[in-house]
Amino acid sequence: MRSKDFEGMVCPVADVMGAIGDRWGALVMRDLLLGLTRYDDLRRSTGVTNATLSDRLKTLERNGLIERRRYQTRPERFEYVPTQRGRELRLLMQAMVQIGDKWNLNGLDGPPIRFLDTQSGHEVKLAFVDAETGELASSLQLRPAPGSGADALMQWRLDRGTRPAE
Amino acid sequence: MRSKDFEGMVCPVADVMGAIGDRWGALVMRDLLLGLTRYDDLRRSTGVTNATLSDRLKTLERNGLIERRRYQTRPERFEYVPTQRGRELRLLMQAMVQIGDKWNLNGLDGPPIRFLDTQSGHEVKLAFVDAETGELASSLQLRPAPGSGADALMQWRLDRGTRPAE
Repeated sequence: MRSKDFEGMVCPVADVMGAIGDRWGALVMRDLLLGLTRYDDLRRSTGVTNATLSDRLKTLERNGLIERRRYQTRPERFEYVPTQRGRELRLLMQAMVQIGDKWNLNGLDGPPIRFLDTQSGHEVKLAFVDAETGELASSLQLRPAPGSGADALMQWRLDRGTRPAE
Repeated sequence: MRSKDFEGMVCPVADVMGAIGDRWGALVMRDLLLGLTRYDDLRRSTGVTNATLSDRLKTLERNGLIERRRYQTRPERFEYVPTQRGRELRLLMQAMVQIGDKWNLNGLDGPPIRFLDTQSGHEVKLAFVDAETGELASSLQLRPAPGSGADALMQWRLDRGTRPAE
């Protein structure tokens, strides 16, 4: 399932971008995560051509992010639903929504989409929290550090990135 | 600055993916956000060709995500740093890191990278919090809803996505 292009690179950014493929893949994944399942709906929502949509659906399926299910015979019809792995991309979509709102490239007077907690009914947002206590992080200054799975390249990248400018 | 391909689509996912361009753009942006600034470092870290790197740096600069600064004359040399808008992509990178850790496509025994709060020294993670109170969301069931900037297509997409299957 790893993208051939990124083979040998231990990096979650490479893994996630490789699995989604490109921005058309991201738009299709966005729609599936919003609950669209039908091919025609995906076409209408994304505005992509049939060739592009078919191809990206195959890519997402091959990468284990979505499943194709038959919901009708004679004629056969299929719907598409995110797998468990695909559903984890919600975090990514939410991050993009928050960044897009900050950028506001469309000059809107409010966000195009919001996410509500079904239990409380309140709007939710992504925020940095203390990994142990679950409380909001005390500062907004973060520092990257190697994890136990860092390879030599990641180690080098972090050393190089955090040392003072020459 | 909006990507021509996505013109007319009011969607933050399209905006953000359009600005980054592709996965090579994402890798370059990752490195710049980790503090790499030099062309040669970016080449080494991403493993891309000169042609690809030059092109993606130009794209990111044109899209307002990075700035090119001269740090030396005779010979002239430049470094690259994220703009304010570019720094907002940290949220996206962090989301990818967390998703990549969950997927663990590389079979690592731990994450390759972690983020620490510089004030507390504790590891931080992205989580959904109540937008008003800042407390962790009470459930993990989220429901998308149109925001005040939703256009007709977004409205349709959300209606269509959340209605019960036929």
